[in-house]
Amino acid sequence: MNIKQKGLLIVLSGPSGVGKGTVRKELFKHVDNLKYSISMTTRPMRPGEENGKDYYFVTKDEFIKRIEKGKFLEHAQFVGNFYGTPLDKIEDCINNGDDMLLEIEVNGATQVRHKLPEAVLIFLVPPSKKDLYERLKSRGTEDEEVIQARIQKADSEFPEARFYDYIVVNDKVEDAAKRILEIINAEHSKRIRVYDEYLKILNK
Amino acid sequence: MNIKQKGLLIVLSGPSGVGKGTVRKELFKHVDNLKYSISMTTRPMRPGEENGKDYYFVTKDEFIKRIEKGKFLEHAQFVGNFYGTPLDKIEDCINNGDDMLLEIEVNGATQVRHKLPEAVLIFLVPPSKKDLYERLKSRGTEDEEVIQARIQKADSEFPEARFYDYIVVNDKVEDAAKRILEIINAEHSKRIRVYDEYLKILNK
Repeated sequence: MNIKQKGLLIVLSGPSGVGKGTVRKELFKHVDNLKYSISMTTRPMRPGEENGKDYYFVTKDEFIKRIEKGKFLEHAQFVGNFYGTPLDKIEDCINNGDDMLLEIEVNGATQVRHKLPEAVLIFLVPPSKKDLYERLKSRGTEDEEVIQARIQKADSEFPEARFYDYIVVNDKVEDAAKRILEIINAEHSKRIRVYDEYLKILNK
Repeated sequence: MNIKQKGLLIVLSGPSGVGKGTVRKELFKHVDNLKYSISMTTRPMRPGEENGKDYYFVTKDEFIKRIEKGKFLEHAQFVGNFYGTPLDKIEDCINNGDDMLLEIEVNGATQVRHKLPEAVLIFLVPPSKKDLYERLKSRGTEDEEVIQARIQKADSEFPEARFYDYIVVNDKVEDAAKRILEIINAEHSKRIRVYDEYLKILNK
């Protein structure tokens, strides 16, 4: 039994190429009360991706219009493409007591941290830098210039871990997903989140 | 994979009669890398209890000698009996990278919090006060006067939850134990505990 509380906003981030998407998909096999915030992007759809499932794929004009209307919790630009988190639905979800997971780039996570300090920030890391470089090179969907840009981006992102609540190693996808699930469950028992409600249920 | 770190000192406490011992025993069915700090007491052994397993049972003279020699991390007195946590082995265990669990009374937990602020404090609570009163009455091993003393003690302990890191409801023993296990695992991913070591492994 969880003591009643607002939903959690879980931010899953980490350096470029660490495997955030894979871990997130594994995590969602094992939860049924966690909602996923689908990001919006202007980057081209990759093979196997679906609009409205992996991302909302929109044009740059459309994206810029939405920025101007304040419709993003956070947004970022990388290698010529925009990525953003639609604001609507997130507040509703949280206030309704449901958890929501955002899987976003490091820059975006920094914006969320400033706007919603009660968010739970999880930084996914590779077992080593070398391991991540290998993953980026073997992905095979991008040319050498893009790979080098992603390596440089990853290098600049590693120290950002210091602003996060948790650091989870992605050595095995299943283990990383399990660890994140445990973090979410543990956060629901945090005294700071449940103390007021605890005093109420006690006197029932 | 956990990033290398010191062991955790987990303090399981909560109001008198909430079921700390039962939850602790359930928890230990599901862990193999958690050590249990056996408390020392001067209270009489209950049916089914074993010396050196449930408690170290000693005389009051022996207990007072140990207090004078500074051999307790914490100690407390309740209904005429002493309870304490032997200090030796705890520091060794933690520094060796192993987790240790203390199951102690609220007064003792307060002492641990002051001496070892990095300890993880978990406050076990009943689903309601009424539920706890029923448990105390149905335990049947103590007379009415002792029951009333425990109820009064429990009432004074409920608000102490505000000093703890986590509040876990003991509605079902299995669920409470599972939640505690998740808290322990999540704590091992806390950025504050692993950041220095994370920087080292990255560069390997």
